[in-house]
Amino acid sequence: MYFDFLCPFAWRGVELADVLRRERGLPFRLRHYSLLQGNHPENPDRKAPTWWLHEQPAEGGNAAQQASLRAFLAAQAAARQGEGAAWAFTLALFRAKHERQSELDEQTVRVAAREAGLDLTRFEDDLADDRTLREALAAELRDAAALGVFGTPTFVLPDGNAAYLRFSGLIREAQAAQALWNLYGEVLHSGAGIETIKRPR
Amino acid sequence: MYFDFLCPFAWRGVELADVLRRERGLPFRLRHYSLLQGNHPENPDRKAPTWWLHEQPAEGGNAAQQASLRAFLAAQAAARQGEGAAWAFTLALFRAKHERQSELDEQTVRVAAREAGLDLTRFEDDLADDRTLREALAAELRDAAALGVFGTPTFVLPDGNAAYLRFSGLIREAQAAQALWNLYGEVLHSGAGIETIKRPR
Repeated sequence: MYFDFLCPFAWRGVELADVLRRERGLPFRLRHYSLLQGNHPENPDRKAPTWWLHEQPAEGGNAAQQASLRAFLAAQAAARQGEGAAWAFTLALFRAKHERQSELDEQTVRVAAREAGLDLTRFEDDLADDRTLREALAAELRDAAALGVFGTPTFVLPDGNAAYLRFSGLIREAQAAQALWNLYGEVLHSGAGIETIKRPR
Repeated sequence: MYFDFLCPFAWRGVELADVLRRERGLPFRLRHYSLLQGNHPENPDRKAPTWWLHEQPAEGGNAAQQASLRAFLAAQAAARQGEGAAWAFTLALFRAKHERQSELDEQTVRVAAREAGLDLTRFEDDLADDRTLREALAAELRDAAALGVFGTPTFVLPDGNAAYLRFSGLIREAQAAQALWNLYGEVLHSGAGIETIKRPR
């Protein structure tokens, strides 16, 4: 699943995936996609970006851009402590941002690392290894661009089917999570060739 | 269901609705929405248009605009011969445009009227009543704008749930039509509050 920490619907998607992962044993992989990059005016074709988030200076652009880059790099640092650490940190940071309305600043990143039970000394060391973190982020952003990801959360199934899934509910219960996941799969695998279902707003 | 004769996905939607109407007794109402109007640069807010298709001269704008206005007004004229006539004409015109790749010109409109079994003398008389047809079209376009329709086909259920449904299959068989319709309903009524499912392209 591709997500961006800025996106409240990606938060719901990560919560959904976490329930299904923990309680139903479904494997999900955390992948990074940048909405700012995808919607950037210098990237009229989001499948062939010229403006890349991982190439931007830490203090460049507006507050959202700085927050987004900081969050992604911190998540890359957390992932170096293993998959469980990546999930715990990602969830903690999403909840800080979208449940408690915290800014994605350095303080929030450190609080999330502590909540996630990371080895904090190692986390700081990894955070300092900026070049490697940016290379790891670049690989994510390149994969997302190649797929044409345009919003988050976007789930890519092992069979290649993929779609953006936007839902307003906050689902932390296994049965409801499974029902939504099954319905999403039915839509993607329908013989009708469903491409879009989208409510007017 | 809101549709635009220009749209190949609206054609699939009308075929779907026609199967469900004829073979399953589901009631659908044919409604007009203009993609050119919704996407017009003078209408940055498609819920509050300033540029309306029904106010444009028959020979105004580009070929697509002329074809779209001509098709809608002809369908309004056909509808004056009853609901069955409206369905027969709408299907005939969609098939001419999207199955046989005809232009939506005056010739195609007349052929569709004949195929639909319309009273052709009355059809010509009704077509000449331009002002009344435009008023009827205006009412459709106003309703669509108020709902925030942005693409076709968009189905609005009696309970108020509504969504654009884009699918690539051409469905003319009752069981497949019912399966798609049921799945669409499940998505709209899911407790998860699904707002969008959209594949990257």
